[in-house]
Amino acid sequence: MRRVEVGGESPYAVHVGRDLTRSVEIAQRRRALIVDSGLPGVTVAGVLDALSPEVVVEVPSGEACKTTAVYAEVLSRLARAALPRDSAVISLGGGATTDLGGFVAATYLRGVASYTLPTTLLGAVDAAVGGKTGLNLPEGKNLVGAFWSPRGVWCDVTWLATLPPAVFRDGCAEVFKHGLLTDGNLCDRVLAPDFGPEASDLVDVVADAVKVKADVVTRDPRESGERAVLNLGHTLAHALEAVTDHGVSHGEAVGYGLHYAAILSRDLGGRDLTDLTARFLRFLRPTPLPPLEWSDVAPLIARDKKADSAGVRFVLLPEIGRAELTRVPEAAASAAFVTWRGAVAELLTSDS
Amino acid sequence: MRRVEVGGESPYAVHVGRDLTRSVEIAQRRRALIVDSGLPGVTVAGVLDALSPEVVVEVPSGEACKTTAVYAEVLSRLARAALPRDSAVISLGGGATTDLGGFVAATYLRGVASYTLPTTLLGAVDAAVGGKTGLNLPEGKNLVGAFWSPRGVWCDVTWLATLPPAVFRDGCAEVFKHGLLTDGNLCDRVLAPDFGPEASDLVDVVADAVKVKADVVTRDPRESGERAVLNLGHTLAHALEAVTDHGVSHGEAVGYGLHYAAILSRDLGGRDLTDLTARFLRFLRPTPLPPLEWSDVAPLIARDKKADSAGVRFVLLPEIGRAELTRVPEAAASAAFVTWRGAVAELLTSDS
Repeated sequence: MRRVEVGGESPYAVHVGRDLTRSVEIAQRRRALIVDSGLPGVTVAGVLDALSPEVVVEVPSGEACKTTAVYAEVLSRLARAALPRDSAVISLGGGATTDLGGFVAATYLRGVASYTLPTTLLGAVDAAVGGKTGLNLPEGKNLVGAFWSPRGVWCDVTWLATLPPAVFRDGCAEVFKHGLLTDGNLCDRVLAPDFGPEASDLVDVVADAVKVKADVVTRDPRESGERAVLNLGHTLAHALEAVTDHGVSHGEAVGYGLHYAAILSRDLGGRDLTDLTARFLRFLRPTPLPPLEWSDVAPLIARDKKADSAGVRFVLLPEIGRAELTRVPEAAASAAFVTWRGAVAELLTSDS
Repeated sequence: MRRVEVGGESPYAVHVGRDLTRSVEIAQRRRALIVDSGLPGVTVAGVLDALSPEVVVEVPSGEACKTTAVYAEVLSRLARAALPRDSAVISLGGGATTDLGGFVAATYLRGVASYTLPTTLLGAVDAAVGGKTGLNLPEGKNLVGAFWSPRGVWCDVTWLATLPPAVFRDGCAEVFKHGLLTDGNLCDRVLAPDFGPEASDLVDVVADAVKVKADVVTRDPRESGERAVLNLGHTLAHALEAVTDHGVSHGEAVGYGLHYAAILSRDLGGRDLTDLTARFLRFLRPTPLPPLEWSDVAPLIARDKKADSAGVRFVLLPEIGRAELTRVPEAAASAAFVTWRGAVAELLTSDS
């Protein structure tokens, strides 16, 4: 089992291993489990057996759980059980489930202990690290939430192999991004021919990817500076998710967004990393996008919560390992969009 | 204008004065105003004129705004206006409005600047100080929320005189409680024959009452210890509000609860302060309670969010200025309840 420390205001550890359910440590005796209703029964049964929660709340699978209505219902379930302040809220599921569960923990009785057991690659390498919790609104994703660190995170990589291959590929986008933000090693591992949910080095890949994010958020827990680099590829990605009404998954949108970031960075004088991001996009085989104009996505980009009153900034990648939050002229952003659209069309038709 | 400093993790000041709308300082250019729909037009017009918010959200008056449904609607209004992270959410209204507005500020885009303009005595001396924000659930009051300090609070005491006398009296319960927690001086001022919304010393009474709470929360911002004394009278009060489905107001419930706390404290060996709390209850003239048994309120007390897994504790007052959080045997609590019920019946019939 690998253990990765996350620092900041409330330090905790992310544990990555195989068959680790029996190693999960919950300090609180009274426990609620919030669980994605789409999980395999064997995963849920193992956790129930090990942790004996007194309240189990099944929530809709994936993003469908991140609504204010589901949030209100989960809170009422905890209140009806009269769970006190020294209880634990444990979230078992993908990043959406842990975002919801974390926000419930952050706000039930003004805050109780949170623990997360991510069952997806995306949930393990992204949502589980950094204390962000939240909900979506009809107006956009993650527009509501709180910073609330879990007391501990446990990811059993055997869970990852029980989910559909597309869910696993989805999480690869963040692992690949973490490779771009450091030395490129994680990019190579994701693109290696034997990589997948059964890969023998999976514990290390997951733990290494967790560590990249952990190191960034340890230095900038409240996203006041450096942490913004984790948003590489995400500004366009959020717009693509919104404009397709989540017809593309988060990982697919990030795959598209990383290729866009590579094009924009090259156009603005950086090294040409577009071959690498194109290889990843081919690996990802994302759901095709509808025909899009810059004018379709520009207003959504302006609403991105990383925007401030002075305009939108993009994370650029002048070279591997050096990401920079930069204010970009709209003309450059829209020109890169046209280039990107053409490149994507060619990439995804040429080898299908 | 009096200025009271509140320390802790995010220090700020509470300003109390007359006609101070022009003195309100909001650092952010982009502003949303959340306003109690029951306020006099002149109060709202003055604030709109001084602060020029770009979004104005009217919410139901009083506790009716503290629902997850209203919360979701307010968040959507901010999102539709694409208010960015460096915006301000300003709450104008009583404690319920500022609780809601503060929770919106705490969670919109994972936290934006909050400012509160309390228009009720209760809002000024209680809700405005200490950074607690929150909502009710069908299962109970304030079961959801976050600690999120405002950047500043301004209370114009001329607002207090524009509201119904019962609203003013309601706030007196917390002022009186703050007197019990210190040297009794505020108790005497509330019970003075000339006290009321037009009293000449009102700015000082409000500011002094604010200062009592400010000093406590400065020493214990997260309610890990001393802050619990502010709950004097509140454990029974919350149960009475719940069991009457808010047929008694918060101030009335606290008035009842303070008399109960005085009886329980005396029964357990403290000084007899029941004459003082009885005088206050007569002054308050609260809505009568339905016939109640200990078994009606005991389960609600067990659900109080101040309860932990080991049982319920009450704040006792062995003498003026010395409040103590104490675990109380159920037999003593139920016996005091019977005494209290008899005393209340006599008090409220003998001089009506």
